[in-house]
Amino acid sequence: MSRKYGVADTTFSRVDMGSIADKVIRMEDDEGEVTRYTVPGIKDLPVAAKRLLDAGCDGVITLGWVGRTQLDKYSYLSSSIGLIMVQILTSKHVIDVTVHEDEADNDQELKRIAVDRATKHARNLVYLVRDGKDALRKYAGTGLRQGYANAGTIE
Amino acid sequence: MSRKYGVADTTFSRVDMGSIADKVIRMEDDEGEVTRYTVPGIKDLPVAAKRLLDAGCDGVITLGWVGRTQLDKYSYLSSSIGLIMVQILTSKHVIDVTVHEDEADNDQELKRIAVDRATKHARNLVYLVRDGKDALRKYAGTGLRQGYANAGTIE
Amino acid sequence: MSRKYGVADTTFSRVDMGSIADKVIRMEDDEGEVTRYTVPGIKDLPVAAKRLLDAGCDGVITLGWVGRTQLDKYSYLSSSIGLIMVQILTSKHVIDVTVHEDEADNDQELKRIAVDRATKHARNLVYLVRDGKDALRKYAGTGLRQGYANAGTIE
Amino acid sequence: MSRKYGVADTTFSRVDMGSIADKVIRMEDDEGEVTRYTVPGIKDLPVAAKRLLDAGCDGVITLGWVGRTQLDKYSYLSSSIGLIMVQILTSKHVIDVTVHEDEADNDQELKRIAVDRATKHARNLVYLVRDGKDALRKYAGTGLRQGYANAGTIE
Amino acid sequence: MSRKYGVADTTFSRVDMGSIADKVIRMEDDEGEVTRYTVPGIKDLPVAAKRLLDAGCDGVITLGWVGRTQLDKYSYLSSSIGLIMVQILTSKHVIDVTVHEDEADNDQELKRIAVDRATKHARNLVYLVRDGKDALRKYAGTGLRQGYANAGTIE
Repeated sequence: MSRKYGVADTTFSRVDMGSIADKVIRMEDDEGEVTRYTVPGIKDLPVAAKRLLDAGCDGVITLGWVGRTQLDKYSYLSSSIGLIMVQILTSKHVIDVTVHEDEADNDQELKRIAVDRATKHARNLVYLVRDGKDALRKYAGTGLRQGYANAGTIE
Repeated sequence: MSRKYGVADTTFSRVDMGSIADKVIRMEDDEGEVTRYTVPGIKDLPVAAKRLLDAGCDGVITLGWVGRTQLDKYSYLSSSIGLIMVQILTSKHVIDVTVHEDEADNDQELKRIAVDRATKHARNLVYLVRDGKDALRKYAGTGLRQGYANAGTIE
Repeated sequence: MSRKYGVADTTFSRVDMGSIADKVIRMEDDEGEVTRYTVPGIKDLPVAAKRLLDAGCDGVITLGWVGRTQLDKYSYLSSSIGLIMVQILTSKHVIDVTVHEDEADNDQELKRIAVDRATKHARNLVYLVRDGKDALRKYAGTGLRQGYANAGTIE
Repeated sequence: MSRKYGVADTTFSRVDMGSIADKVIRMEDDEGEVTRYTVPGIKDLPVAAKRLLDAGCDGVITLGWVGRTQLDKYSYLSSSIGLIMVQILTSKHVIDVTVHEDEADNDQELKRIAVDRATKHARNLVYLVRDGKDALRKYAGTGLRQGYANAGTIE
Repeated sequence: MSRKYGVADTTFSRVDMGSIADKVIRMEDDEGEVTRYTVPGIKDLPVAAKRLLDAGCDGVITLGWVGRTQLDKYSYLSSSIGLIMVQILTSKHVIDVTVHEDEADNDQELKRIAVDRATKHARNLVYLVRDGKDALRKYAGTGLRQGYANAGTIE
């Protein structure tokens, strides 16, 4: 049975993370089908995820870009709560990837973070949807990071 | 089949963004029907959106104006969470436009932001409701902004 | 058909805003019926509003008083989210009036704010419940304020 | 018909507020029945309240103790939102009592606050559950405080 | 009847708290069955808990690790709200254990906190699931701490 993945991204983002996630998912799961959904900004992502799940997706990845102001952080908080509510109501995974403009002080570093984070979390989505609750077990407690170097287990 | 759009705005706002959104929607979608709803302030917008959707709207745009104090920001946060919950429960888009008094230090600039943001997001609503999940795809990751100059894709 | 209004207030408040709202509603809508509900503090207002709506009210006004500390602000945030959830789940208006002790540095000014805000929002409730979504249209974008002088439209 | 009250408290608390509330409720309502529930900390209180209501309680009082750090405040915020959601979903009162370690700079004062607050809010629960929405009317707007001296009505 | 416990942990964590909780639960309840679920980070824990409960678990412990930035704190807040919502909707306990990187200034101390907290809360989960609402009564108000020395009752 082929799996259906949803990818929701924004026009606000300065990196096309949706296409990265789309490509990574197809590469990781060659029986996977990807449906995309593009919205203006992060506050539109929860309903996009909900609609993708309503339409039969087994799991979704959302790719958001967040500005530098306190206002942007409140929007991030609202969106995160919304994405978690979508998951609770549907019992499906929605991996919530965000890149924050204050994570780096130059564009190239931001882009590098975005590419790395979207790539790694797209893989995580495949592992969870296709392989289930035990797929990431071997990495439990190993301090994996997305966008940065892994922190590692404290020995 | 003609589409039904909802426009919810407030008496707190210092710019009549509801009429702007109304006009833009009718211009963009000449088969579209617009229903309006005016409430006192942003905390009343989630139920206005809910009632518009209950009454058959296919999507809603809300137009809020937010003061400068920390208290106003908490009200913004509550409203944003509420608007996202409305979307999750109905699986319909509610585009949440807000202008914050601390975004500019003079009234004319605030007005300019409000007009630009209401206009662009009214178009976004039409694209999402009429044309669906792929309508904004070509702008994914291109750093579009509403109220400000576009930020562009990081090359 | 006579309309049923709910008024929920607190023993924490230092101004009897519930009685003000009650009087204003009866004055504005002489076919209106008012049911009151008094609770200890703002965090008890969402369930009071819910119970008033369960008992048949067409709309509710809640009148809260909020202290000066950060803790009080978090309680305000929780209550606001709760009051918005009540509205979303019932599709009825609950106008959430709050007076914050740090809005003024003397008691008389706080009282003046409380009286003005409760009065104006009680009228807003009648307009929304009795006259519906278009009743406040003429004031859309006109910068109305409750507790302070109106800010006006930006010309 | 005898009334059923729930009392939920924590092992984190440094004062046994649950036993105080239990005793006060039985003293105020001699036909009342009290069911207790003890959990580790404040984030466990919403489900404890929910389970007490599921088991037939007419109302619940929760007694939480909150640390000094910003992290503790976020936990307070989450718990408060949760307790309000429980009330909205069940239409029953859950009086949310919390004592915050930064309310006083010595243990005896904290204990005094805890005892006073638990006592007064246990009475409030009885008034609301047994006597209903009008029981606290005479104190509306009179500036009652729990844990501190009453603030009084602004004349 | 044997009890079913869920343990949800993350690959972000720098200590394998899931295995600690797993071991402690089996040690405390030799008729208990443990099902594990590993996800990338704390925002994925609410749906993991929900899925474990959907699959028949009687209670769940989640083990999260939280970074030092304000952004991490907002993620903590979202996750906490989500975990509380899962509990409210299912009426089952989900004990939400988190270790915050700013709780200590060296790795060994962080690890010590994580081990102690995971251990003690795993026991709490068994007490609540197997023994019910009265199991922790004797410790009510005694100032128990997880990760730190107990604070004790204020005499």
